[in-house]
Amino acid sequence: MRRQRLDQILWDDFQKLPLLKKGPFFQQGDGRPYHVLIAQQFERDRLEQLCQLATRIRRIAKSKQGMEFLASLLCHKRAMLDFSQPSSRTFLSFYAACQILGLKAAEVRDPATSSEMKGESREDSVRTFSSYFDMIVMRTPLQGFAEKMAWLLSNTERPIPIINAGSGKDQHPTQALLDIYTLQRSFEKTGGIEGKTVMFVGDLARGRTVRSLSYLLTKYANVTQYFVAPAELQVHQDVLDQLDAARVTYHVCQDFEAVLPEADAIYMTRIQDEWDTEEGQSKRVDISQYYFKAEHLNRIKFNTIIMHPLPRRQEIAVAVDHDPRAMYWRQMRNGMWIRTALIATMFGRDDEIGAYYQLNLK
Amino acid sequence: MRRQRLDQILWDDFQKLPLLKKGPFFQQGDGRPYHVLIAQQFERDRLEQLCQLATRIRRIAKSKQGMEFLASLLCHKRAMLDFSQPSSRTFLSFYAACQILGLKAAEVRDPATSSEMKGESREDSVRTFSSYFDMIVMRTPLQGFAEKMAWLLSNTERPIPIINAGSGKDQHPTQALLDIYTLQRSFEKTGGIEGKTVMFVGDLARGRTVRSLSYLLTKYANVTQYFVAPAELQVHQDVLDQLDAARVTYHVCQDFEAVLPEADAIYMTRIQDEWDTEEGQSKRVDISQYYFKAEHLNRIKFNTIIMHPLPRRQEIAVAVDHDPRAMYWRQMRNGMWIRTALIATMFGRDDEIGAYYQLNLK
Amino acid sequence: MRRQRLDQILWDDFQKLPLLKKGPFFQQGDGRPYHVLIAQQFERDRLEQLCQLATRIRRIAKSKQGMEFLASLLCHKRAMLDFSQPSSRTFLSFYAACQILGLKAAEVRDPATSSEMKGESREDSVRTFSSYFDMIVMRTPLQGFAEKMAWLLSNTERPIPIINAGSGKDQHPTQALLDIYTLQRSFEKTGGIEGKTVMFVGDLARGRTVRSLSYLLTKYANVTQYFVAPAELQVHQDVLDQLDAARVTYHVCQDFEAVLPEADAIYMTRIQDEWDTEEGQSKRVDISQYYFKAEHLNRIKFNTIIMHPLPRRQEIAVAVDHDPRAMYWRQMRNGMWIRTALIATMFGRDDEIGAYYQLNLK
Repeated sequence: MRRQRLDQILWDDFQKLPLLKKGPFFQQGDGRPYHVLIAQQFERDRLEQLCQLATRIRRIAKSKQGMEFLASLLCHKRAMLDFSQPSSRTFLSFYAACQILGLKAAEVRDPATSSEMKGESREDSVRTFSSYFDMIVMRTPLQGFAEKMAWLLSNTERPIPIINAGSGKDQHPTQALLDIYTLQRSFEKTGGIEGKTVMFVGDLARGRTVRSLSYLLTKYANVTQYFVAPAELQVHQDVLDQLDAARVTYHVCQDFEAVLPEADAIYMTRIQDEWDTEEGQSKRVDISQYYFKAEHLNRIKFNTIIMHPLPRRQEIAVAVDHDPRAMYWRQMRNGMWIRTALIATMFGRDDEIGAYYQLNLK
Repeated sequence: MRRQRLDQILWDDFQKLPLLKKGPFFQQGDGRPYHVLIAQQFERDRLEQLCQLATRIRRIAKSKQGMEFLASLLCHKRAMLDFSQPSSRTFLSFYAACQILGLKAAEVRDPATSSEMKGESREDSVRTFSSYFDMIVMRTPLQGFAEKMAWLLSNTERPIPIINAGSGKDQHPTQALLDIYTLQRSFEKTGGIEGKTVMFVGDLARGRTVRSLSYLLTKYANVTQYFVAPAELQVHQDVLDQLDAARVTYHVCQDFEAVLPEADAIYMTRIQDEWDTEEGQSKRVDISQYYFKAEHLNRIKFNTIIMHPLPRRQEIAVAVDHDPRAMYWRQMRNGMWIRTALIATMFGRDDEIGAYYQLNLK
Repeated sequence: MRRQRLDQILWDDFQKLPLLKKGPFFQQGDGRPYHVLIAQQFERDRLEQLCQLATRIRRIAKSKQGMEFLASLLCHKRAMLDFSQPSSRTFLSFYAACQILGLKAAEVRDPATSSEMKGESREDSVRTFSSYFDMIVMRTPLQGFAEKMAWLLSNTERPIPIINAGSGKDQHPTQALLDIYTLQRSFEKTGGIEGKTVMFVGDLARGRTVRSLSYLLTKYANVTQYFVAPAELQVHQDVLDQLDAARVTYHVCQDFEAVLPEADAIYMTRIQDEWDTEEGQSKRVDISQYYFKAEHLNRIKFNTIIMHPLPRRQEIAVAVDHDPRAMYWRQMRNGMWIRTALIATMFGRDDEIGAYYQLNLK
């Protein structure tokens, strides 16, 4: 695969590219991710490789010797976790992934600390981080900012990799990866993701995880997608256009309970009221009939899994937690493993992990 | 010792148990602490073992080789320091203890960061931490919360250990351990803690360290306890009941200067005005006659020690700091050593430390 | 060199000493820095040694093996980064330096966390840090505070070293070191710093980096200094007195564009409006004619370097960044290397680095 280099395209030209054309700019010559910015940059074989690597890391991590091996892989590197938009879950997950790989992390996650950098442009701040660290994990409320910084750094002496850990309403690619990994693990003994039915529920208009996962699922043959939400929160047309283009079967509907028995995976989401454009906008929508309650456990298949990107509010009753089909806690932990796999791959240490696995755990 | 397991008792039943009955639920099968939640879970022989281990760690830590050995013990583990109630002193002490053992730590100690997790229940937040880490050190203003989370996690797939680093007004067990360690070190050459006279001074009504230490001292024969405070801040009856039950000699009094010459250890405390139930409540109490001033150094024995859990305000004059009997700074550093010993013991690395000590330092 | 010890002088006497007399109190017996508190403590040969060591560290750090060697040097030590006055840039630079040397760092940089320590004196807080850590890097808005704490700790059982990472308006010695290192690297092939012309521009009244660098440049023969600023922000007389005493040639002037062609190094600074003594004080000064714009690139020599301590506002146009003479980004990264060299030297590991370098990279 020929690498397309970010420093060989003008920013204005780059911006106009559709997502699928941008992907190759974020890859290394051998197809490994260089930057991780959008879900659209991941091909099916890369997804499979990441899932396999995550599982191997998870198994290696069970022994002290294995953990010591993992921690030796990137002990010579430093990562900056730039969480100017706070998110404890994503932050801690990345932080733990860095710790597993021995990658030394520093952080900005306090709004007060970052406001101190006021008077300096955001671009200069990120360039500062690039001076001291070998990778930036970036979460920001600004749509497209991670892409812009990846382009900008590519034109400096220190074009270090960037991972987008959530930017604005549009992209959260590592969340999509952990969702895929959770589906892959859950359906490992039932033929994999292909042919399964996935049901998205809740705030589908503004949930970036839904957008990304819906797209990645088009890489798997014969997956049927249901979008179940009140009209105000229903998925946007651009997501459906994407499915049409990929000739995927999907259904847009409102009757939560009717669809339940069809699903192999139920992907619950919370109301993203932080994106409300006017005060109380979300509260006017009655979402209560889209809650997964204890009694719904009787309406789903014995091997259906229930997912949620978390945090949850009332979308899933706490009583559901103890059911073996409740997959959201394990899903969260999967995030740590797939992020570990991703970072190891970016730095080209995947082969070494594979070799260790073959030698010690096969 | 038969282990009583937290996942084999209902929460409602567990809550009704007296403290002494709860202790066994926090132990491992071999009597090592699993969770560390209340001072009452520590028996005399465990206290002795922890003190001995702390001293050995302290000596091992004097050489680079020793520090490298210690840092290898838990380099495969990760700890979450969840300080939603900030406390720099306790936080840094635990953080340093983790660093000594190679235990990789992550933290939440910024109220702004934790408020971001709003909308999520505290229980879900702690469960999140348990997904990524191997131990949680938890400081919270909520009485009983650490216990509740220990019970809750025991009923999940990741029942990781919890250390209570201060919860509400009731418990701060590792503070009690460092106090015991300080007494044990100070009285090492004068027959140990047994038979000594300990004088508690200041806000005895609300100081959780006093409650815990007073209890642990009942494990040592013939210790006399004095409680010296103005009436409004005098120790509560439940502490005295505990002493009556253990047939311990104690005195409740108000005359600070009269008791000074009797004490082998003087435990000063500050006014805990953060627990005031109405504005200015503490300010109405005149505590100035309970201050330890430079001239009081002439009224105490040549080998009496002066302790304070810190931070201090005016309870102890700065001029006292240089007197060799001022033990509070060393007491604070003891906290780092005893916490290191405690964590090493929880993870079963105490024997390895003992073996290293015998081989290299005996 | 005979060591003068901080614990052998009274605080009142120490305070009265001129800066140059204070320096020796901050050195070890062999001339290595013990504390790093003021730019005036550095002699020419120490500057040369630090620059050489920084360059060696930088080269060693290019390989994984080299990074592992560096990280083994101080893996048995712990550092406290006490940034009660926030500064992301200086903080991250020191943090990265600690990571490079394997030095385990803890931090206070959140005003909310430190305000929690209220009720405790700042002196007691620093003494707390000294109990758990082996070095304190301290940034504070209080002039002279780092010196005071160095003196105070010298009179305790744990007289650990302190690095001043910026105190009030007066001192920021490690910034001066990185400026010297940047000049030394930039002029390596053109005869070194001696004989060069350095032009300071901007807020010279309140920029502590200018004060320190101006002083250190007196250690290099025949350096000419220009101070170019509006009258209100012009350098203070004490800096000029210092230059007079050292018989250094300097010019105080206002015409930015006229001086540009003379300079070998142009040191731009921003308006330090955080030190305004009244609302809007800085805004009344028109600084726009002291901005370095893209067109100025044509007015400077082909090998002149442009420096800036950062953060910048409008003092330097972003268009200038791509010119090879723009040295400010590399200057910032130099800060990480010189701080690494400094810490290694303080702990006496410079010789070991030199030996590794001779063996592996010469």
